[in-house]
Amino acid sequence: PRPHRIAVIPGDGIGKEVMPEALRALDAVQRKFGVPLELVPIDWASCDHYAKTGEMMPPDWKNQLSGMDAILFGAVGWPATVPDHVSLWGSLLKFRREFDQYINLRPVRLFDGVPCPLAGRKPGDIDFLVVRENTEGEYTNLGGVMYAGTEREIVLQETVMSRHGTDRVLKFAFEQAAARPRQKLDVATKSNGIAISMPWWDGRADAMHANYPQIAVEKHHIDILCARFVLQPQRFDVVVASNLFGDILSDLGPACTGTIGLAPSANLNPERAFPSLFEPVHGSAPDIYGQGIANPVAMVWSAALMLQFLGEQAAHDAMLAAIEQVLAQGPRTRDLGGQASTAEMGAAIAERI
Amino acid sequence: PRPHRIAVIPGDGIGKEVMPEALRALDAVQRKFGVPLELVPIDWASCDHYAKTGEMMPPDWKNQLSGMDAILFGAVGWPATVPDHVSLWGSLLKFRREFDQYINLRPVRLFDGVPCPLAGRKPGDIDFLVVRENTEGEYTNLGGVMYAGTEREIVLQETVMSRHGTDRVLKFAFEQAAARPRQKLDVATKSNGIAISMPWWDGRADAMHANYPQIAVEKHHIDILCARFVLQPQRFDVVVASNLFGDILSDLGPACTGTIGLAPSANLNPERAFPSLFEPVHGSAPDIYGQGIANPVAMVWSAALMLQFLGEQAAHDAMLAAIEQVLAQGPRTRDLGGQASTAEMGAAIAERI
Ligand SMILES: CC(C)[C@H](C(=O)O)[C@@H](O)C(=O)O
Ligand SMILES: CC(C)[C@H](C(=O)O)[C@@H](O)C(=O)O
Repeated sequence: PRPHRIAVIPGDGIGKEVMPEALRALDAVQRKFGVPLELVPIDWASCDHYAKTGEMMPPDWKNQLSGMDAILFGAVGWPATVPDHVSLWGSLLKFRREFDQYINLRPVRLFDGVPCPLAGRKPGDIDFLVVRENTEGEYTNLGGVMYAGTEREIVLQETVMSRHGTDRVLKFAFEQAAARPRQKLDVATKSNGIAISMPWWDGRADAMHANYPQIAVEKHHIDILCARFVLQPQRFDVVVASNLFGDILSDLGPACTGTIGLAPSANLNPERAFPSLFEPVHGSAPDIYGQGIANPVAMVWSAALMLQFLGEQAAHDAMLAAIEQVLAQGPRTRDLGGQASTAEMGAAIAERI
Repeated sequence: PRPHRIAVIPGDGIGKEVMPEALRALDAVQRKFGVPLELVPIDWASCDHYAKTGEMMPPDWKNQLSGMDAILFGAVGWPATVPDHVSLWGSLLKFRREFDQYINLRPVRLFDGVPCPLAGRKPGDIDFLVVRENTEGEYTNLGGVMYAGTEREIVLQETVMSRHGTDRVLKFAFEQAAARPRQKLDVATKSNGIAISMPWWDGRADAMHANYPQIAVEKHHIDILCARFVLQPQRFDVVVASNLFGDILSDLGPACTGTIGLAPSANLNPERAFPSLFEPVHGSAPDIYGQGIANPVAMVWSAALMLQFLGEQAAHDAMLAAIEQVLAQGPRTRDLGGQASTAEMGAAIAERI
């Protein structure tokens, strides 16, 4: 069969350290399952590229990537040299929007062998999915500053939600909930404070619920929802949220399972009109970059989600099983209380595959 | 001396159950310290009032409250009969804005005797202050729906920040940090995603920092900040945040200390041009209302913060000491693993005073 064409973009910071471990794991599944992969390394979409060229990506970035089946992405951001809103809006957020990756899927799971910061929780207690809207909502660069530079300065920042954008993420989330045994969907809102968009969002959730009467739906204001992630994580199965709230929940969820070093994400265009993008949640982590101590699991797991999306379920399962075994038995990086380097942990995962 | 005039507004749900316990505690400090209090009971600012009159508050609410030194508030909201954005914008959020209570101060503390959901944390490990902007930001009813009711529906929701409103909360937070031994301020942001208002907010934080060079400042994107509340709560001393982010952090922080049933808040107009308002963070909690099991501590502690703001430090200290003792020795409500009713726990606190 024609190989899956994958753009490989390490990006910045620990993205460059964890990406080789994903490639090592992909190499292992390639050999074991004969998964045909064509890996296309790309050195732009990084602050290094910005330092050289004054832009995050070349003008023809979209052309270069359009033929790809997926993008495997490390992390982007190096605030010491490029402000975050410049680097992110010039790369990752552009991918999400221009490739209409409107679903950001983020599994949260407590693994055997990973010390849990929540008292008394064991593997199995925490296992849910955050479905995040990924193309609109609170993340915009619309608005501006009036009376700039004076005492009277006023800033407007626009949130934009469309029925098109909202209904499709709600539908996706209901479908996920319908495919799981618990038949339960939790909806993040803040309709008591954010008085225009969030009551409207609640209304769209109600309208979509009418198509899935068998699903039990519960709405939570984002403040109490965050509290419940800590106090009652076993309560959740599929959680759907706007762009910002999904961002918050998909860092908080993984924190409750021990470390954000484990959390993968899939930025999906479910219609496959554009390449989907797979990346760890953790970001470029300038504070630990260069020491070779970053946890490679989120990156490897993201690569596994990519294979699953490409139809390679057996390869996905083997990668996830290898991750589970290494988490349970070691070697482990420091964020998990171990001593292993990124490469040691990555090699151990590849070996088990 | 002239008594402190306090408007007492139980509001809705468990607000009506915990308020009597605050009054019991106030009665005790009144007798013990001779604190002169004039309590003015008010039955509006509630969904019951709305059911009777079609409005949350009478037209002359501002006049009725203007002569007060403070407002002691239970909770508002009864979504089964009044949508939250109607009840909240018609009462609590009106107070915050029209009385220019621009600081929402929310202490977070782990107490002896309170089971902590975070593994291995002990009293002393978690003790910080969330300083939340309380009058503008993400909470607005500005915006609207275009193509309403059609497939092309688009919703705009405005966030509004002013230099006036931002600088004063940052200044207050820096002053709090400067008055504490650790000389440290953490700033919540999301400048990598929310591309107009949050980079501007970061700039205002930098500008204010120039006036407090001795304070160590760290900025955190809200997603990773939530993760750090769970993973490294001991790291925080004073945290300053916009309206929405402060809302989230001040539910999550208390969750990390065991229960939001403990968390008090002070909605302050520091200039005392208007009455300040003191209320528990927990809200009306329809799910547990009517059973007499609500934890009264957040309400009593809010009353203590009120006395402190009114200059009655000794009375505040006595109330807080009583709370500490009861938390350590019981009786405790169910959210703390005990069996006591709201009234039993409230009576125990009053007795220790
Ligand atoms: C009830 C709601 C509008 C309110 C808020 O979000 O400010 C509450 O959650 C709080 O934190 O005081
Ligand atoms: C880097 C940042 C813009 C991004 C986001 O907020 O979406 C990241 O936190 C994520 O969750 O993928």
